[in-house]
Amino acid sequence: MKKTKLALLIACTIMIASTAAAQKQETDSFKLGMAAYCFRRFDADHLLDAVKKLDINYITVKEFHLPLESPDADIYAFRAKCGHSVIPYAVGPIFMRDNASVDQTFEFTKKMGAKMIIAFPQYELLDYIEAKANEYGIRVALHNHADQPILFSATEAWEHVRDRGPMMGMCLDIAMDYRAGFDPIADYERYHSRVFDIHIKDVDVPSKEGWTVEMGRGTIDIPAFVKALRRTGYDGVCSLEYEKDMDDPLLGIAESIGYWRGVCAW
Amino acid sequence: MKKTKLALLIACTIMIASTAAAQKQETDSFKLGMAAYCFRRFDADHLLDAVKKLDINYITVKEFHLPLESPDADIYAFRAKCGHSVIPYAVGPIFMRDNASVDQTFEFTKKMGAKMIIAFPQYELLDYIEAKANEYGIRVALHNHADQPILFSATEAWEHVRDRGPMMGMCLDIAMDYRAGFDPIADYERYHSRVFDIHIKDVDVPSKEGWTVEMGRGTIDIPAFVKALRRTGYDGVCSLEYEKDMDDPLLGIAESIGYWRGVCAW
Repeated sequence: MKKTKLALLIACTIMIASTAAAQKQETDSFKLGMAAYCFRRFDADHLLDAVKKLDINYITVKEFHLPLESPDADIYAFRAKCGHSVIPYAVGPIFMRDNASVDQTFEFTKKMGAKMIIAFPQYELLDYIEAKANEYGIRVALHNHADQPILFSATEAWEHVRDRGPMMGMCLDIAMDYRAGFDPIADYERYHSRVFDIHIKDVDVPSKEGWTVEMGRGTIDIPAFVKALRRTGYDGVCSLEYEKDMDDPLLGIAESIGYWRGVCAW
Repeated sequence: MKKTKLALLIACTIMIASTAAAQKQETDSFKLGMAAYCFRRFDADHLLDAVKKLDINYITVKEFHLPLESPDADIYAFRAKCGHSVIPYAVGPIFMRDNASVDQTFEFTKKMGAKMIIAFPQYELLDYIEAKANEYGIRVALHNHADQPILFSATEAWEHVRDRGPMMGMCLDIAMDYRAGFDPIADYERYHSRVFDIHIKDVDVPSKEGWTVEMGRGTIDIPAFVKALRRTGYDGVCSLEYEKDMDDPLLGIAESIGYWRGVCAW
């Protein structure tokens, strides 16, 4: 009888502790995701294996893991591999150069069960894209960039969505913003009402010459950024997009994920 | 001329940013170390490779990487491998069962150039150990434990050093303390005047059945612990001792190191 009570006590302790840990993570670290780009030199299995080991529940889907023209069976097989623990919440970043590519992206995203497209669109397509977004119930997030040939800033992305309907917003890449010479915390605060998604990473210097480094080893003020997310009640995903050591990125990814969780632990 | 100025500006920016990043890490994350135990199933090269990749400057040395009876040449070869960036600051944890093992440990530690021995000593050896510590100028830190056959608590360690001279102190293992049913933050605050070294890790449940998990996924309140270190001006090393996935620990180690740095970033 005593043994049973002890076992029960231990089981309860484990349950309470597990629930507490899960809640801590759920509420404090926002929805933590992994941008597929981190694994662009690996197949989708590597990506899924990594996110499961790192206890991450959200991923984006990129064409190098699953082409947009994939047959339905391949798309459903990918979803099945994600299982219940990994949610392919968004597709992209993806170029959209004509109506046909817009159509294809929305069809693919719908079959994937994702609710967002992260896009580098030609601006003249935006009316068409917004109509599709409304039709499919899939939000579109314009992704800022710092490098040629897709040089547009967070401010430009904002200006192209601010007067559109609520399905049109931005994916703020804090490192691209920083490397383009801007302050990602100030830009987030300016544009947060349309920030649907965030790419998190760290960079050594605030210029185009800047390189991705393990989060925390660079110069972006991550705690200040997290404070800004909390002040504004951000409820989207924060996806790590790690661009260093692309042939062997796992160690730096794990350190970065740990760093983000550590910053969010306060 | 313009190009030269631009290059100079970039170089200065990189220097300032690098210095800022280094200072941030140095001052905020305490001295971050790696306990050799994490790599007990690997050789010393794996340990050194990992700490270099993770930008960690302090390690402990254990007998499975370099036996205490090693010839001088092997000890000096190990030091040479550490280079300038990795400091073997302590030897241990190590059992001390008789005077001969004490003598051997101090000789080894001196040749290694380390300034501390982390020890599980027989208590009746403490007078002899303290005399050696004074003679060699090497501090001794008693390591608390939660499991058989070396079951002694942080409080017992404290009681065995509190009335001794300043070369005798403790290595507080926060997870062992927690698993033994105590509060590592309260214990640190009680005993901090003699805490020379700390083993950091996280655990799922506060009982002997508890398992090491990636730091931040467990239930030890790491931010509260860091606060306590700051309140007391702790200036020793905090060494990660990760005991999960011992056949493939690197991913969890990187996540844990990142988490610690993230918590310390506030």
